[in-house]
Amino acid sequence: MRKHITGFSNPTVKYLRSLRDKKHRRRAGQFLVEGLRLLEDARAGGRLPRTLVMAEGRAPHALLERLEAEVLEAGGEVIATTPDILSKITGKENAQSLAGVFDEWDTGLGGVDRDAAPIWLVAQALRDPGNLGTMLRTCDAVGAGGLILIDDCADPFSAEAVRASMGAIFTVGLAQARWEDFLPWLRGGKGQLVAASLRDAVPYRGADYRAPCFILVGNESQGLPAEYEAACDLRVTMPMKGRADSLNAAVAGAVLAYEVLAEVDPSA
Amino acid sequence: MRKHITGFSNPTVKYLRSLRDKKHRRRAGQFLVEGLRLLEDARAGGRLPRTLVMAEGRAPHALLERLEAEVLEAGGEVIATTPDILSKITGKENAQSLAGVFDEWDTGLGGVDRDAAPIWLVAQALRDPGNLGTMLRTCDAVGAGGLILIDDCADPFSAEAVRASMGAIFTVGLAQARWEDFLPWLRGGKGQLVAASLRDAVPYRGADYRAPCFILVGNESQGLPAEYEAACDLRVTMPMKGRADSLNAAVAGAVLAYEVLAEVDPSA
Repeated sequence: MRKHITGFSNPTVKYLRSLRDKKHRRRAGQFLVEGLRLLEDARAGGRLPRTLVMAEGRAPHALLERLEAEVLEAGGEVIATTPDILSKITGKENAQSLAGVFDEWDTGLGGVDRDAAPIWLVAQALRDPGNLGTMLRTCDAVGAGGLILIDDCADPFSAEAVRASMGAIFTVGLAQARWEDFLPWLRGGKGQLVAASLRDAVPYRGADYRAPCFILVGNESQGLPAEYEAACDLRVTMPMKGRADSLNAAVAGAVLAYEVLAEVDPSA
Repeated sequence: MRKHITGFSNPTVKYLRSLRDKKHRRRAGQFLVEGLRLLEDARAGGRLPRTLVMAEGRAPHALLERLEAEVLEAGGEVIATTPDILSKITGKENAQSLAGVFDEWDTGLGGVDRDAAPIWLVAQALRDPGNLGTMLRTCDAVGAGGLILIDDCADPFSAEAVRASMGAIFTVGLAQARWEDFLPWLRGGKGQLVAASLRDAVPYRGADYRAPCFILVGNESQGLPAEYEAACDLRVTMPMKGRADSLNAAVAGAVLAYEVLAEVDPSA
């Protein structure tokens, strides 16, 4: 059954609003996703919102009806409210008429099955949530197992990262770890660690990539620490024909990922 | 000589603030750039600010002194102000202690020398200024002549686009045109138009690219209009192994650009 909320000062409204803030998301272990398309991506990835919030007066929609039924059946909650309150919750003037609250999930390295895919993206100290989401989207495109976030990265459950992922947050793997935990984990099984680098590197094109290949991309402004680069099995360099010596982090990851895909899976 | 401004309500402060807004930028034909690094990139690209604004009390810096001297010699203006006023101008709490006002330049197709480079990026209805700046940065990296913006795109002179370009806005070519003007211009000389496409396409890897190659990327959510795709000389497709059928626009452009670079310039 739907619950109706009509007051701006309702505690549920305050709670949902608070999820826009990273600190509150972390404490609650929940995050907010806006729009039917992303909610359908989540459903396709096997994830249902705990709470579904919809604007009253929204036109009927078969997908939405199915989603509502499944949320209720799974013991979740469905809230109907005014478009104004929904705007207040999502912080957008032209809010979509639908949002969902999801439980964050475990992102430990224990959940990474390295044999499940020939390519993994690994980002170190990635600060821009748009880049993070874009890398998740690239993971989906190249058939990568997922994205492993090393050290202090942007929050993958932020609205901007989720949106930039175009739903891939729900369908590709995600892990978060410190470098000092990641490296022993990686060395505990097979896996080639490859860095985009300017030091002691071979041309990226046609390099000797081996699956499962872990492509490591560094922080947007600092790049990778020298020590991290040194720990890699392979350092590759891309042509830089202009004045700059680096690419956007998400772009570098994608160009490398497509090159690795061509090498490890020539049928792709 | 430096001019000192200490009042928030000074008309120059109001004018500089207004440049954060696209409408005002367009009317003024000027844009604002923040930080010594970008200003040095501009200088390297042969562009000096009309007005240099610096925070009083800033530590001396040889590059800044040179820049100040050159701006004055070119007949420009140097303004010293308080950090608070500079923050107000740039709209950031932790503003960098330096900003410059540049004249926008002519971005007509007449300025494009198609023989100057083997690769050009062309973006249609690109709405995200971060994507736009990232594509400029990619142009620099692959040695492309520049970026041609088709139809209604984000403003290349917005702070976000300039920042994402990492200075490439000042060093690579930039043109803006409607499709109905671009296509006849293109057909008036040599040039291969290539689209990333799902329709009637060949694999992007090893396709028959010819310099000068114009890589056309479509709008973030709609992709390219079918009519635009049909007008291309070559339609190529990248592997999409997941659920989604597209990449981030800047990522797609970069993956294609690096592939074209490898084909038209194997020494790269």
